[in-house]
Amino acid sequence: MTKNEAIKAALELANKAEIVMLGTNGDNGYPNIKGMIKRENEGLRTIWFSTNTSSRRVPQIMKDPKTCVYFVDFEKWKGLMLVGTIEILQDPKSKKRLWEDTDLRYYSEGVTDPDYTVMRFTTEWGNYYHKLSNVTFNIEEVGE
Amino acid sequence: MTKNEAIKAALELANKAEIVMLGTNGDNGYPNIKGMIKRENEGLRTIWFSTNTSSRRVPQIMKDPKTCVYFVDFEKWKGLMLVGTIEILQDPKSKKRLWEDTDLRYYSEGVTDPDYTVMRFTTEWGNYYHKLSNVTFNIEEVGE
Repeated sequence: MTKNEAIKAALELANKAEIVMLGTNGDNGYPNIKGMIKRENEGLRTIWFSTNTSSRRVPQIMKDPKTCVYFVDFEKWKGLMLVGTIEILQDPKSKKRLWEDTDLRYYSEGVTDPDYTVMRFTTEWGNYYHKLSNVTFNIEEVGE
Repeated sequence: MTKNEAIKAALELANKAEIVMLGTNGDNGYPNIKGMIKRENEGLRTIWFSTNTSSRRVPQIMKDPKTCVYFVDFEKWKGLMLVGTIEILQDPKSKKRLWEDTDLRYYSEGVTDPDYTVMRFTTEWGNYYHKLSNVTFNIEEVGE
């Protein structure tokens, strides 16, 4: 698997994913993982999430934005880790960007609901594997 | 969902899982995640893995054994995070415990192959969620 082949396969996996795993630095120096709905991805560069403002992830991320996002295909034994940083966004433009009418189930006040928070992950580097081969790449090596 | 119901459902998810996500403390303070085959679990207390001795996880874990293991059911929107520490084991008893004949595909020298390494994760606490409810428990609260 060449680097270009890995990046192409990584992009397919990221585009297809609905639920991804977010790795954060939790309390007392332990890594934490949580399954999250992927709201949007701009290629491999940026992944958008939404969460409850009251979620335990929010203070973790405000304290330490170093995170990773993991995509997995259990059947085909493919995995992609993207490593980078994540931001908590509360500005109206970011909140409107992800908002869908079905979000009203969770955020009864709508897009301005103070419990509705948007998170934007920015990739620095990644590692893609398929079966026994794996390839590491920097985000600069990824095309648009 | 009561704590007992959550622990029971967590145990079912852990028993059923084939591939789980291992969270480690990676380079430069970033969390890392990798999909791993669960070789064995002793309830929620201990999870056994095997890996290549040459894997990049091994020096990470030797430097910092603080880890987490994440189990997910994408269809039913269930997740379980176990937080604790992991050990690298090279003793013959541990290596024999997990060895299966199909491992010969990866470790041609058999159970004594120096590239075959066993890892044992020990849980301190966990968090189980199903849809919108989630429950945190200490391992002392889990029966045998």
